[in-house]
Amino acid sequence: MTQLNPPERLLMGPGPSNVHPRVYGALAAPIVGHLDPVFLDVMEQSKALLRDTFETKNELTIPISGTGSAGMETCFVNVLEPGDRVVIGVNGVFGNRMCDVAERCGAQVERVEAAWGEAIDPAQFEVALESGAQTKLVAVVQAETSTGVLQPLEAIGALAREHGALFLVDAVTSLGGVSVGVDTHGIDLCYSGTQKCLGCPPGLSPVTLSESAVSALQSRKSKVQSWYLDLGMIAQYWGETRVYHHTAPISMNYALREALLLIHEEGLESRWNRHRTHQQALLAGLQTLGLEPVVQEPSLRLPPLTTVRVPDQVDEAAVRKQLLTEFDIEIGGGLGVFQGNAWRIGLMGHTSSPKNLMTFLAALEICLRATGLDASGGLAQAHKVLDAE
Amino acid sequence: MTQLNPPERLLMGPGPSNVHPRVYGALAAPIVGHLDPVFLDVMEQSKALLRDTFETKNELTIPISGTGSAGMETCFVNVLEPGDRVVIGVNGVFGNRMCDVAERCGAQVERVEAAWGEAIDPAQFEVALESGAQTKLVAVVQAETSTGVLQPLEAIGALAREHGALFLVDAVTSLGGVSVGVDTHGIDLCYSGTQKCLGCPPGLSPVTLSESAVSALQSRKSKVQSWYLDLGMIAQYWGETRVYHHTAPISMNYALREALLLIHEEGLESRWNRHRTHQQALLAGLQTLGLEPVVQEPSLRLPPLTTVRVPDQVDEAAVRKQLLTEFDIEIGGGLGVFQGNAWRIGLMGHTSSPKNLMTFLAALEICLRATGLDASGGLAQAHKVLDAE
Repeated sequence: MTQLNPPERLLMGPGPSNVHPRVYGALAAPIVGHLDPVFLDVMEQSKALLRDTFETKNELTIPISGTGSAGMETCFVNVLEPGDRVVIGVNGVFGNRMCDVAERCGAQVERVEAAWGEAIDPAQFEVALESGAQTKLVAVVQAETSTGVLQPLEAIGALAREHGALFLVDAVTSLGGVSVGVDTHGIDLCYSGTQKCLGCPPGLSPVTLSESAVSALQSRKSKVQSWYLDLGMIAQYWGETRVYHHTAPISMNYALREALLLIHEEGLESRWNRHRTHQQALLAGLQTLGLEPVVQEPSLRLPPLTTVRVPDQVDEAAVRKQLLTEFDIEIGGGLGVFQGNAWRIGLMGHTSSPKNLMTFLAALEICLRATGLDASGGLAQAHKVLDAE
Repeated sequence: MTQLNPPERLLMGPGPSNVHPRVYGALAAPIVGHLDPVFLDVMEQSKALLRDTFETKNELTIPISGTGSAGMETCFVNVLEPGDRVVIGVNGVFGNRMCDVAERCGAQVERVEAAWGEAIDPAQFEVALESGAQTKLVAVVQAETSTGVLQPLEAIGALAREHGALFLVDAVTSLGGVSVGVDTHGIDLCYSGTQKCLGCPPGLSPVTLSESAVSALQSRKSKVQSWYLDLGMIAQYWGETRVYHHTAPISMNYALREALLLIHEEGLESRWNRHRTHQQALLAGLQTLGLEPVVQEPSLRLPPLTTVRVPDQVDEAAVRKQLLTEFDIEIGGGLGVFQGNAWRIGLMGHTSSPKNLMTFLAALEICLRATGLDASGGLAQAHKVLDAE
């Protein structure tokens, strides 16, 4: 076994995305103790930067010491108790995962579904909320990483409020790439992951809880079933008393702070525009190469992650392998109903640049032509979109 | 807010410990995707290196994507079901934590206690195992980070086996610094943390499960209450099928592999000897300075973590503050019954070197003399121990 020497991939799959050199620098900075005044400053700075990124004033806004799925579980286990009714939107892998997590809390789960690749109609949430017992929680995925759908939140959030339910949003693939608007959408619980549009390696999951969510946590009858994810205790460490809970992942927290600082320097609006513009350029190029988007309605396309159908005559896995081995480019295959017939192409965080999308379009054109497709002109179309900005 | 510029602390508290430059290098290596062939190789190498470090042949030996406490929770939630009887040894913070975690699984917890600073008498486990219902699990902390006690495992392991119970061991502060001997001690479930004797930043928790533990997991009637820590699913990703569960923390896994490789290069026996010798030198120095060990019996002193009583006339927090601010040295205060009257001094992993222990003794001598104590000669005594090796 020798020293590690990984290739420099262009990470254009559904995450992780590429990491800015400053974030790598932070990862390799000398660690200090988890109660060191220097680290306590890092924690305070990260909380402030995370609030800005989530667009919230929520006091309880912190990174959980696990990946995005740990953030998902944190949100469910801290407010749910056995028997609670939950209405969950399902139009892909991550909606399904939320149901599984909620069921493990002993909750009564009501699924509100849409076809994969489509958004969920708020009217269906209304039906679910008006039938059956009082609902404790309404949950939906803003950015379905398995399909590339951007779910509108406003109407669902309003329905949850009307029916006295907490509103939970999965923002794993949106935070830092698309507006999440925690306060404007009345979101009570929201979680994300570091390895998508935040531009940090995977390992932490930022979460934010509204005052209503904190009240629900404080008025529980039973202990939170997960000790590790118990926000009542974690919030003390991240709050003024600094009571030790677990040893915070120091290096990953350094990296997250640096990634959030880069977002702060760029500005949220500029960053969202960058993700949107580059997706439009990417998609113009892909369509010119003969690839059609999975998500029909343009306004429902998730800017950081573009899903396209793979032409019937193309072996999608073979093309992905060629991209990886010949060009050091990673893209994602389809999941569930899209397995074998779609690609998921990410332009997230630091990865979302003209150079990267052009490099990818050039490489893909070569791979597609090798399969016999008459694919050409993708770069020129992408350039037109960029030039028009 | 400016770029991160943390001080270079000498980390001699109860963890995290200092990190080898090669491990920092691995942290800052370019990330790849969590299903990239390059990362799959890293996973296989880490599994093999972890098996060596745990002294086991267990197939299911992997790092959990959270800190040591996530590893603790993983071990309990995967084998326990509501109503199961568990016998847990408690002689410090982490035994207490195990009880809390087990109770959150709905288990019936039987505590077997010893005073803080003492080991637990196996006869007490025998009494607990022979009274009451069949016991599913016997759990004990090998290295109590709150007291510095090294708990002998052999007799307790034998009792667990005799009574048909699984044997669970907390090796957070022992793995890589003291022999854990998973296979020789008949340990069925064992977890550790990366930030102690493994010499890696905090963020991952290596766990290993015996075939009996895996059988218990497979024959569960109910789903594991934690989705994130469900080893049935996690083992698929770390096994041959590579089914996606959550996005592995790539950088932290790079770092762990490098830290394990350093252990492999040093050799386990040499590493254990290094930790033992340096503790003996440290303690000789501390005793010369007038500080007496908390743990009376020498064979029960945990080599990576030395606990000493603080003389009555010394303000322990003030000395720790002086060490940190003037000398960039972190040591730990006492917890629980030792709060305010003991120090916890770690020589773990990369930190355990003659230079570090001498630097610390020199700094401590200065701090103690400033309080009016006639402290001197610590370095000379420590040198004698090192020279005798």
